[in-house]
This record gives sequence, structure tokens and C-alpha cells, in this order.
Amino acid sequence: MSELLFGNCSLADVDASGALRFIADGLVHVRDDRIVFAGPRAQGQHLTQRLELLDMESMLVTPGLIDCHTHLIYAGDRLGDLLAQRDPDDPSRDRFESGGILATVNATNQASRASLATLARSRIDQMADHGVTTVEVKSGYGLSMEGERRLLEIARSLSGYRGIEVITSFLGAHALPTAYASRPADYIALLTKEVMPTLAAEGLIDMVDCFIDPEGFSASIVTPYLERASELGLPIRAHVDQFGAAGGGELALSFGARSIDHIEHLSSAALATARGSGTVAVLLPFAYLHKSLTSIPPIMGLRDNQVPMAVATDLNPGTSPTASLLLAAYLSVTLYGLRPVEAFAGITRRAAEALGLSDRGRLDPGCRADLVAWEVGHPYELVASVFDRRAHRLG
Amino acid sequence: MSELLFGNCSLADVDASGALRFIADGLVHVRDDRIVFAGPRAQGQHLTQRLELLDMESMLVTPGLIDCHTHLIYAGDRLGDLLAQRDPDDPSRDRFESGGILATVNATNQASRASLATLARSRIDQMADHGVTTVEVKSGYGLSMEGERRLLEIARSLSGYRGIEVITSFLGAHALPTAYASRPADYIALLTKEVMPTLAAEGLIDMVDCFIDPEGFSASIVTPYLERASELGLPIRAHVDQFGAAGGGELALSFGARSIDHIEHLSSAALATARGSGTVAVLLPFAYLHKSLTSIPPIMGLRDNQVPMAVATDLNPGTSPTASLLLAAYLSVTLYGLRPVEAFAGITRRAAEALGLSDRGRLDPGCRADLVAWEVGHPYELVASVFDRRAHRLG
Ligand SMILES: [Zn+2]
Ligand SMILES: [Zn+2]
Repeated sequence: MSELLFGNCSLADVDASGALRFIADGLVHVRDDRIVFAGPRAQGQHLTQRLELLDMESMLVTPGLIDCHTHLIYAGDRLGDLLAQRDPDDPSRDRFESGGILATVNATNQASRASLATLARSRIDQMADHGVTTVEVKSGYGLSMEGERRLLEIARSLSGYRGIEVITSFLGAHALPTAYASRPADYIALLTKEVMPTLAAEGLIDMVDCFIDPEGFSASIVTPYLERASELGLPIRAHVDQFGAAGGGELALSFGARSIDHIEHLSSAALATARGSGTVAVLLPFAYLHKSLTSIPPIMGLRDNQVPMAVATDLNPGTSPTASLLLAAYLSVTLYGLRPVEAFAGITRRAAEALGLSDRGRLDPGCRADLVAWEVGHPYELVASVFDRRAHRLG
Repeated sequence: MSELLFGNCSLADVDASGALRFIADGLVHVRDDRIVFAGPRAQGQHLTQRLELLDMESMLVTPGLIDCHTHLIYAGDRLGDLLAQRDPDDPSRDRFESGGILATVNATNQASRASLATLARSRIDQMADHGVTTVEVKSGYGLSMEGERRLLEIARSLSGYRGIEVITSFLGAHALPTAYASRPADYIALLTKEVMPTLAAEGLIDMVDCFIDPEGFSASIVTPYLERASELGLPIRAHVDQFGAAGGGELALSFGARSIDHIEHLSSAALATARGSGTVAVLLPFAYLHKSLTSIPPIMGLRDNQVPMAVATDLNPGTSPTASLLLAAYLSVTLYGLRPVEAFAGITRRAAEALGLSDRGRLDPGCRADLVAWEVGHPYELVASVFDRRAHRLG
């Protein structure tokens, strides 16, 4: 049995109602990697008498951050897509990949397993430095049995690196591979009948994801895929309605999705359905910025309907080339108008909810002791400004 | 005499026309902290025969970055201003300063010289880690003879820390101090007749700056201040037309300003005047983002009129809380539509031009050897994505 007591720190997390819990002079008691007590020093006198205090030097202790939406494992560099948009005549353009998701699929399928893992670890290093302790990782750059399996196996193998737990999402329905051009139903049938059940049986899939969008799959085409996920008992989440309205929100909600992600063009009908559903809205403002979108998600509608909001990086080479969850949180405030407390909740408690994880993202007794400490006085400094913030992992 | 030869690296800078110079396999020959040769390895055979090669391990070597517009030295935290805008009912609001520039003036004037220097050094640490080797630092949070002198003295004392040179701008005309409320002409007279000439005589002022804006000073009020700067032979630059059109661009250009900064609301008349003037447009997109402005600077007009564009952080606690010049460059691409090559030029060659410095910001013979190396293959990776990029200072 290991027992630790952290003190001389402030504490911050968010309660179930979304209100900030801030304790200026706190104590955290950890036993066997679980939180036993996190609260005011005054309520922990019995602990300080019994245990040696680990001095946190006035830092702020928060739950480890949770990046609940990433495409972490890929090769190549899609700066070519950006150049095509910003400077099509730039002579350097052919140095970089362009051509959307399929360009990354090509580059990724051509890369070795070892090089993909090395690239992914370098991104995890950045996440760990920034206080992330749980990361969701999607497949979707394989688009075949072998390609998707390889990505999910790499994801599983990365879990634990830098003390970060990896949660996997199967994203076979990410884009239509060239071999199935203009036969989307056939590709979805392959995924539904072979790839998804096989990889699920191999224990590689924690959740199932898909891209329902004018630039992705239509709701009707992708329906059998979600039906199969339901039959297999796999939790569903979905990229929906990012570049335009595609009925993605409605469809995902009809399957009781854990989360609907992007939602720049979510319909008001879907918004109303989301109310009380438990589905989390995952906001990805860096992708919105990188793609120069002009329509933001319906933040006020989400608030009015009490839909929990998470914030994630969407880390990927084409539309969201960043590993910085704090920057995503900052952009949720400045581009989407989130309140600082909502942004902080979005990368802690709400992100855990989006992943269906009830044991982290907050400082309640019984939660995992995935704790990080920051050299700031208040959690809003983390989400309302963009300075270098190096997180110290506790324990 | 010290002589160094760096090899096994790529090289990148921008030529006078604004075109990228990229050399995939380069050599840099440095003597007495000046560049003697930077070019293709094939042209440096005589050097490799004579000098030991310092192996740069395939990194990219660029000129040190130049942050040509910062308010580096301040105390306090203006998150209260953001909360007032985003969540006025947040119970944490009173933990932070709010009230615009004057709130920072109060906090700064109350802070000790030592604590201001310590805070500033922690910001310079971030800049140095991100490859900055020259930084401009403004006063403007003192607003009195003593207060402004103290800031400029601290700025001078910081020069050299982490190998970064500090260039100072006197920004007495930043805001109207409470003691002069509704008497802006009296305050400008104080600056013009006493503060500016005194501090200039003390050698503390490299340039003179002011804030000409509906939220700052009017063009007519500030005219004597700029006249005095001219008489004293001090180069002029100005914050102009950020929150609205105030004729700031026209006025600054009529004084032959080195730079006009912000310019979200620059008039088309000023744009035409800027053509061929040598004045640099300094773009500050992080401030645009943080303040949720909706009108961007006239980028196409600047291009059409061949006005050089620099990019800077505007580092300050109220409207641009960041020390990341690479993030500012990225935002100039995604929010303002700059081409990646323009963004890279904006933090190197064009930033030097904005400061009137002809000895840096490029890799030409005779330039200072303020060199940094990056673990990337091409400079566009620095400005078209946001990953952790740690710069290695050479020499
Ligand atoms: Zn995504
Ligand atoms: Zn400024």
C-alpha cells in the first residue's frame, strides 16, 4: 500500500453542475493511486499529523487533462493542403503532402510500424508536458483490415507511455479509400461485416467513430455501421456536421452517442434531442481555425439545453496540426465564446464524460490520482492566455 | 578571432523581394559573430577543408527570430478583462485585474523593480526557447517620468539576458493616466516637454511609440508628441487604427514612421501613402483574436502596395497574453490569410526592417550570427502548424 499526501498547493476542478471548485490552500491524500481526500487543509489535520507532507511549492493541482479526440498516429505532413489554400503558386508546395485525408492514408500505410510509433511518441511527449494524462486515439488512416488493425495495435502499445492511458476509437468510416471510389455502401459493408467485428473481437476497439458530413459519409450510408456497433455493444461517437449540415447529429443521437464532435452545423432539431441525452458535445476549435470555417457551433443552444461541452485538439496533420490541449481550450474561449470555467471543464470533467470514464477528470474521492501541478495561481490562467505551461505529474 | 563552421543542416531565410531562400544542404561560416558565408555545401568546399565542421544533425538553420512589438515588462494579470467580457458573473472575477491599460499601470507601478525584472525574465525565457534573439520592449505602463524611466531602465538591463538584444520604445502616449483625466493635451505636453527629452538624453529611448485610436489618443492631440520625437531625431512607430479608424496611419506616415502597428482599420488613403514609404506594417493577430475583433488588416491592399509586413506577439497582459512568436505567425496565416512565406518573413527579415535594423533577420554575409536551429525540415512547418518547437541557439 502506497500512501501520499500533497500540500502547500491550491486545488481546482469542476463539480457536476459545471461550477468551479477552487481551494486556495489544499491537501490531497492519495492511496494506491486513488484519491482518498482532496480539500481544504483545515479539514485534513488528521492527515498532516500522520503523513509526511509533500511540498507542492504553492502550485495549482488539477486533475490530469484529458484529450478526448485525436488522430494521433499518422505519417506525413499536410502543409500542402494549407499551401493550396493560401499560396497555390508557392514553389515549395510539392515538398508537402496534399489531397485531404487520403494523402495521410497513403503516407501512413507506407510508413513502418516503428516509425509511426516513434512519431506518435513525440506527440505524446508534448501532451504529457502539457498535463495530459488520458488521450483518445482514433484509427481511420488505414481504411482496410490490416491498416486499421495496425493503427489500433500501435495505439494499444502506446498506452502507458509517459503515464498516459490511451483509449481507442475505431474510425474505419473516416474517408472512402480509392479502391472503393463511388462505392461508399460497399466500403461501409466491408467495415460493418468484417473489419469492425474482427477488430472488436481482437479487443482493439473501445469506441466506434465515423465522419457524417457533406465531406464525409451521408447519414443513410453510415447507418448500418452504427447499427453494427450497437449490436456489438460498442459505444458510439461521431464527427458530425463540421463542414455543413448532414443530419449527423440526429443520427448519432438516435444511437445514444457518447459524443457528437465538431458540430459547427448542428441542426436545432438535434440540439433539442441532445437535451438530457447524456451525449457530450466535443468542440474542436483548432480545426475550425485551421480550416478557416466561419460558422461556430451553437454554444448558446448547447448551454440552454444543458448539453455538456468538452474541448479537444483533434490532433491531425491536415485540419488540426497541434498537440496543445491548452491552446484548444484557449481557442474555445476566444473563437467560440466559452466561459473560462467551461473551457476548464471541457478538458477535465466533460472530456472524461465524453469518453464514458467516471473515474477521472475531477478530484473526488475514489477517482484515479492522475494529478498534475501547474506554476499558476488559478486554473483560468491555463485557458485564458497562451504562455508556456509545463505540467508536473504527481505521484 | 573566433571562427565556426556549421554543416549538415538546411538553411532558410527570405530575400529582399520576399521570396524564400531554402538550401537543403547548407553550410554557415561565422567569424567574430558575423556571417561570412551561408549557402550550399557545394560552394563551401574550401571551408570544409580548413575548418572542423559542427554537425547540426539535419536541423534547419534560420536567422534568430525578431519580436518587434512587445509590452514585455508588467505586473498583474488582466484576466478580469476577459471575464468581464466572457462571464461577468463568474465568482472568481475579482481575483484578477480588470480595467484596461490603467489596471496594468497600477499593478506595474506598485511592483518592485526586482519583481518586474523577474517576471520579464520568465517571459524572455519562453521567447528564447522559441528562437527569438531580438525583442523590442515598450514602456507605457508607467505614465510618469519615474514610471517610464524605470521601465526603460529595466528594459536596458535585460538586454543580453539569454543572448537576446532588447530594443526600447518610449510609449508614454499609451493611455491617459488618472491624474490627467479629460486633460489629454496636458498629459501629452508633459511627455513632449519633459519626459521624452529627458529620457532620450539619458539614452533610454531607441524609438518613440504612441497609440492613435478611438480607444487611445486622437491624431490631433498626439501630433506635438511626434513632432518632438522628430526634432530629437528619434525614429517613430505607432499603434494605429486597431479598434477603429482614427487617422493614425496617415499621421504616422506623415512622420515617416518605421512601422504602423495593428492597422485593423487602416484607411485606403493611408495604404496608398504607405506605398514606397519604407514603413513596415506590423501585424498583431493574437491581439485581434484575444479581443475578438472582426475586421482584419487590409492584407491584399498591403500586398498590392508592396508594404512590407512584419508579425509580432504584442505580448501584454490585457489584449495579447502570449510570448509565442511562432503562434502569432501561425495566426497571421490562419486569421489574416498571410502566405506561409510572408509569415516567415514577418518574424525575420521584415521584423528587422520594422526596427530599422539592417544587420539581422537574414543569412547574408556581414549580418550578425544570431542563428537558431530547429528540428524541422522546412520553415513552413514553423508557421503553418502549432507544435512545440524548441530552438537551439548556435554559437
Ligand atoms: Zn477528428
Ligand atoms: Zn502594442
